[in-house]
Amino acid sequence: MPRNPADSPIQPWRLFPPRQIATTRVFDVNARRGQSTANPDRSGEFFSLDCPDWANVIAITPDQQVVLIEQFRFGIEEVTLEIPGGTIDHGESPAAACQRELLEETGYAGDEVRMIGRVSGNPAIQNNFVHTGLILNAKPAGVPKLDQFEEINVSVIPLDAVPGLIRTGAIHHAFVVAAFQHLSLTDV
Amino acid sequence: MPRNPADSPIQPWRLFPPRQIATTRVFDVNARRGQSTANPDRSGEFFSLDCPDWANVIAITPDQQVVLIEQFRFGIEEVTLEIPGGTIDHGESPAAACQRELLEETGYAGDEVRMIGRVSGNPAIQNNFVHTGLILNAKPAGVPKLDQFEEINVSVIPLDAVPGLIRTGAIHHAFVVAAFQHLSLTDV
Repeated sequence: MPRNPADSPIQPWRLFPPRQIATTRVFDVNARRGQSTANPDRSGEFFSLDCPDWANVIAITPDQQVVLIEQFRFGIEEVTLEIPGGTIDHGESPAAACQRELLEETGYAGDEVRMIGRVSGNPAIQNNFVHTGLILNAKPAGVPKLDQFEEINVSVIPLDAVPGLIRTGAIHHAFVVAAFQHLSLTDV
Repeated sequence: MPRNPADSPIQPWRLFPPRQIATTRVFDVNARRGQSTANPDRSGEFFSLDCPDWANVIAITPDQQVVLIEQFRFGIEEVTLEIPGGTIDHGESPAAACQRELLEETGYAGDEVRMIGRVSGNPAIQNNFVHTGLILNAKPAGVPKLDQFEEINVSVIPLDAVPGLIRTGAIHHAFVVAAFQHLSLTDV
């Protein structure tokens, strides 16, 4: 069995203060020097994105359907099929962000959020985590409130169709696939 | 059931030529204007990372153990527990990258690679995909060849311990969790 990371033979590198090399609405890009503690002759410049944590939410209706959204994604220049989610606001809890994003993006609301897992967005080059919430008994509860850049289509599909959509690649967003892995490890 | 994305009511935005705002060893950062086709009055500047595709590999030994690595990750400033993986070289196939990364990072090799899924790294802000390969009958076959910034500890753990490590968050890298979701949907 793997050790607790604190007992790992791999030790954290010494990191020097970051220098911001770009800033955007969604993330900042930092560069900083890192130096191996095991071998101080080994050092280099490393780049990372400074981002707030994100939340996504698996919302399941009383008849065991899951609420999905389609939206155009600027990174891959494609319309993707995903679960709702977004940036956790400063001071907001991951659970509150799940509830808010579900309502804002889809107009759905349901039972109290249960947090079922979190993943690091991309630990090599990003500092943030993505938190997955589960909301049962989700039902239409209002009109979506989209932000200025959001165009979203809401659909519901049977929860038991999700594995097939992941297998065929119709659902391919890494955070969404990871969210359903966490769901499969959760006693609902 | 969701439509084929081509039939989605959500249409791709018009994208103007990108302007590079930062470049690093791992990714470039681009900014470009996007304009809604549904509502041309809606436009804004969008930021994305231009990265090559990545590959990761689930390597399983003859006695049903999986090959894991620990390494310090500069994004989250922590030592993480992951499967081997890395950047696909220019002109290299995802399968070849899986084989190469497994050997370079761990010294293991095994049967022919079977590609079992791919995820978009972060479709909102990245243009790349992460391809997961499965290698059975993995055995020590050489000495790892680490690059100048890699310090890696290799371990093997029973494959059936992985769900517990994901559930408790000991394995939290989004691409690794997604890889095991794809494995769980694969007939091995």
